[in-house]
Amino acid sequence: MAFQVTIVGSNSAIPAYGRHHTSQYIQYKNSRYLVDCGEATQNQLKNYKLSALKINAIFISHLHGDHYLGLPGLLASMHLQGRTKALDVFGPAGLQDILVSHFKYSDTTLKYELRFHSTDEKQHEVIFETRQLTVSTIPLNHRIACMGFLFREKPHPIRFNKAKLPPNLTLAQIGSLKKGEDIYNDAGKLLYKHKDLTIPPLPQKSYAYCSDTAHIPELKHILHKVNLLYHEATFLDENELRASNTFHSTASQAARLAKNAHVNTLLLGHFSARYKDLSPLELEARKIFKESYLALEGKTFTIE
Amino acid sequence: MAFQVTIVGSNSAIPAYGRHHTSQYIQYKNSRYLVDCGEATQNQLKNYKLSALKINAIFISHLHGDHYLGLPGLLASMHLQGRTKALDVFGPAGLQDILVSHFKYSDTTLKYELRFHSTDEKQHEVIFETRQLTVSTIPLNHRIACMGFLFREKPHPIRFNKAKLPPNLTLAQIGSLKKGEDIYNDAGKLLYKHKDLTIPPLPQKSYAYCSDTAHIPELKHILHKVNLLYHEATFLDENELRASNTFHSTASQAARLAKNAHVNTLLLGHFSARYKDLSPLELEARKIFKESYLALEGKTFTIE
Repeated sequence: MAFQVTIVGSNSAIPAYGRHHTSQYIQYKNSRYLVDCGEATQNQLKNYKLSALKINAIFISHLHGDHYLGLPGLLASMHLQGRTKALDVFGPAGLQDILVSHFKYSDTTLKYELRFHSTDEKQHEVIFETRQLTVSTIPLNHRIACMGFLFREKPHPIRFNKAKLPPNLTLAQIGSLKKGEDIYNDAGKLLYKHKDLTIPPLPQKSYAYCSDTAHIPELKHILHKVNLLYHEATFLDENELRASNTFHSTASQAARLAKNAHVNTLLLGHFSARYKDLSPLELEARKIFKESYLALEGKTFTIE
Repeated sequence: MAFQVTIVGSNSAIPAYGRHHTSQYIQYKNSRYLVDCGEATQNQLKNYKLSALKINAIFISHLHGDHYLGLPGLLASMHLQGRTKALDVFGPAGLQDILVSHFKYSDTTLKYELRFHSTDEKQHEVIFETRQLTVSTIPLNHRIACMGFLFREKPHPIRFNKAKLPPNLTLAQIGSLKKGEDIYNDAGKLLYKHKDLTIPPLPQKSYAYCSDTAHIPELKHILHKVNLLYHEATFLDENELRASNTFHSTASQAARLAKNAHVNTLLLGHFSARYKDLSPLELEARKIFKESYLALEGKTFTIE
């Protein structure tokens, strides 16, 4: 289990056809993250046997109810289930206000430390990092302050080509290789070329979450070559005007961005309640970008 | 369809085994009411094909999340679905604060009038009435301010015994009968006894909702002879100490109250997540009060 995204909910404002409000559960090695937490997320986590207690940090994109109204209940349930491990929550400043108010009126003092971090949705900046991963914000364009999140592995170390590595290298010479340098002797003569003794580091895997937003062609720079891109596709192109009026995107727009950003795979989500059958959204996107898939609830996408 | 209660959710604080947070949908003739609105209530209403748009008024018992966290989302969905009819919401004063804050941060201006009425959980008083029904508060004893709700039909009019009614009664004489008076002639001679010409009015049907609360034996007065009583039964008697410490009740306590109040039927609900199998709660209650039933989600109970 390396790097996986499980769709907990992917419908837009009104839940419909058994589809739920937005939430995604991200597993990276031994860490678990939640992105957005619409109403009923805690029920859905149970349905899919995803542990709420193991979540290390929660990222909330914006304060429309379908993206955060499950959060107070989830936080309270962790408290009732005996969580003691601190929890980091990232989101717009108003979210803290909402949570404080809920816990005040319900007279709840959490048994664990809730560390709230308010985010600046206008910046593309790292807001969270571990030894192996960073999470940065992606400025989006929605009716209210809204941001996406980019999960990216930190650079991996250089790998040695063990078959070709001379057995008598000194620590200083190994240090030079790690820095990407060729190796010379004291007389300045080239002994080994760096590229002959090493294998390029593993690529940095990445996942980008972009919901909710109008179409932003310039996002292709931030999203350049991410492995997996989740982009909202609330509407079909036939509703492009409605999409732009409500600061949402169409499946075609999401696909165009995926193509121009040279991502590997596109996930479409945040489906309008008007669509019972979602396959036309997938078909529309695939005409532009072949590797387009529906972010259906319960599905897990692995970043290879 | 006269007077019906449908269980939308009946689990306590942590949703478990597919059971949801508390909510009930009450139909009285052409009116619809919602009592409590835990997280995922709007999804559950859809599951059971109960119309949210038809709801006339919503009653919230207290501000623990499992009883109200579905409300902001439900109100927003009604707005998105084009509701224009005013909606009355009754609950503790803090609820208004919470709703105002949510709609401020989500930048939502509802398309319908939301009339908020703050309740005094210490009083037993009528807070809502229609031509045929009153709803009054029932003071409960919980960790935070909490009240139940008593739905009761207004007195029905006297009914005439058509087989015995003399055809030549004057309007004044009919008026006397409606007031419950016997009929005399001008000389003061008794012509007809009231009881001979009339049938007693239909009884006033009633439904009482009591959640969450520690055991209150004195509630038997307010609950005297209600047709249907929903009373929380979070625990079995073996957890009586835990029940009283957390201001909850056991199934036996609910049954004892139902018996002493001479109600017709008892519904048990607000089940602890510790119970996968709920039948022991029903068995425990039936030892004391035979007409005890589990308030299982999706079940509709008709008040005959």
